[in-house]
Amino acid sequence: MSTQIQIIEPDHQPAPAQPLTASGYRVFNRIIDWITNDRLQLLNITDRINEIVRKSGIRDGIVHLQSLHTTSAVFINEWQDALLHDMRSFVEQLVDRNEYYRHNDPKYSDCERRNADAHLRGMIMGQTLCLQVRNASVLLGTWQSIIFAEFDGPRSRSLAVQVSGV
Amino acid sequence: MSTQIQIIEPDHQPAPAQPLTASGYRVFNRIIDWITNDRLQLLNITDRINEIVRKSGIRDGIVHLQSLHTTSAVFINEWQDALLHDMRSFVEQLVDRNEYYRHNDPKYSDCERRNADAHLRGMIMGQTLCLQVRNASVLLGTWQSIIFAEFDGPRSRSLAVQVSGV
Amino acid sequence: MSTQIQIIEPDHQPAPAQPLTASGYRVFNRIIDWITNDRLQLLNITDRINEIVRKSGIRDGIVHLQSLHTTSAVFINEWQDALLHDMRSFVEQLVDRNEYYRHNDPKYSDCERRNADAHLRGMIMGQTLCLQVRNASVLLGTWQSIIFAEFDGPRSRSLAVQVSGV
Repeated sequence: MSTQIQIIEPDHQPAPAQPLTASGYRVFNRIIDWITNDRLQLLNITDRINEIVRKSGIRDGIVHLQSLHTTSAVFINEWQDALLHDMRSFVEQLVDRNEYYRHNDPKYSDCERRNADAHLRGMIMGQTLCLQVRNASVLLGTWQSIIFAEFDGPRSRSLAVQVSGV
Repeated sequence: MSTQIQIIEPDHQPAPAQPLTASGYRVFNRIIDWITNDRLQLLNITDRINEIVRKSGIRDGIVHLQSLHTTSAVFINEWQDALLHDMRSFVEQLVDRNEYYRHNDPKYSDCERRNADAHLRGMIMGQTLCLQVRNASVLLGTWQSIIFAEFDGPRSRSLAVQVSGV
Repeated sequence: MSTQIQIIEPDHQPAPAQPLTASGYRVFNRIIDWITNDRLQLLNITDRINEIVRKSGIRDGIVHLQSLHTTSAVFINEWQDALLHDMRSFVEQLVDRNEYYRHNDPKYSDCERRNADAHLRGMIMGQTLCLQVRNASVLLGTWQSIIFAEFDGPRSRSLAVQVSGV
């Protein structure tokens, strides 16, 4: 049941007048940022990622997302209000903010944010996400949205976006 | 203890008769699909991924796997019956199907599948996986298999596979 | 608030004397290894990864890390003693070593290491990590370190590192 979608190959007959790299591999880097409002907040960043992919001019390849903060995460799920509530509850329950953590204890740590839970939530959910670019847009299933999770807001946050391919 | 394995570089002396792009970067896209039988089911997809990598003709680069469904996951583990049982139990215990979820509550949600647990399992396990291609096959350790996890079957499922490199 | 960082394009005017591939896509593969000392041990491998990226000569692209062992993981977090203690505790609590697992039961399994917990910890934390290369170094936020987690040491461990790009 393997279905062929597309094979992308660089132009086989490059002419001298046409830059040889016109169909070659490129890397397109951006940083996007925003300010979050809540301690635990989920943001739908699908449209912003698609906008960057479109601007990159890359048709086929990879878009790589990397949050530059340990107390945040990037992942995929359906964007539905009821489910967003469940996601937040699940994360709060998976890593209990009120447990004892050395990172929050002045005896062991000089961190004054008392955000050990946010670090562990970011670690378990992951701060990077790699998605396919096909036909000049991010490949996503019908119900898949790209979600940025703030675990220690409100704060200013940066996400590095890299599109690479042809 | 850094061991050099291989450096792959495109041909350094391209002749006019030989397409300059013959050894260049390429992207090879496929969608594979199957029908699952159980609500929580694990499938070993290693052979199918290796078959696609072989067909791609790419020797060195990346193979990216992306399940197109929020209620599924792709990850690595050993393929052993006893351990598969433990994986299923662990996931069932990590996200309890019988807890209250708004996504399952008609007051908050129009989703009739009552599959909030499947969404949370897919979110925590991840729907994408990136692996290295070396010597025209997927790089895997002796005990590593590529596993697709169905969390809301039985259903028809699609996995996008992209091989990129040289 | 989208900030342009850099657009990397291959040389647009390749001269015959200059190899056409000088600025083209390349793949640089390495395996690094070490011996761990404890059953559950965290190692900061950021410097070693950056050293490989520097050696690769690649300025922009992707560095992909893949542990070749199912009972290990690679992820990002802050490298702080107090927090490292919290990470270990969290992982130990998330997957309880003392629960019953079929993988540890001679009735079901021929594995004598009784390491089901290590398998499940590796599965949930992930054995691969993809990061951006920008300006010839790994892109990381101020507090982000690359951490290798040993879940079934002491053992000899190998990590496959692949740098690809231009």
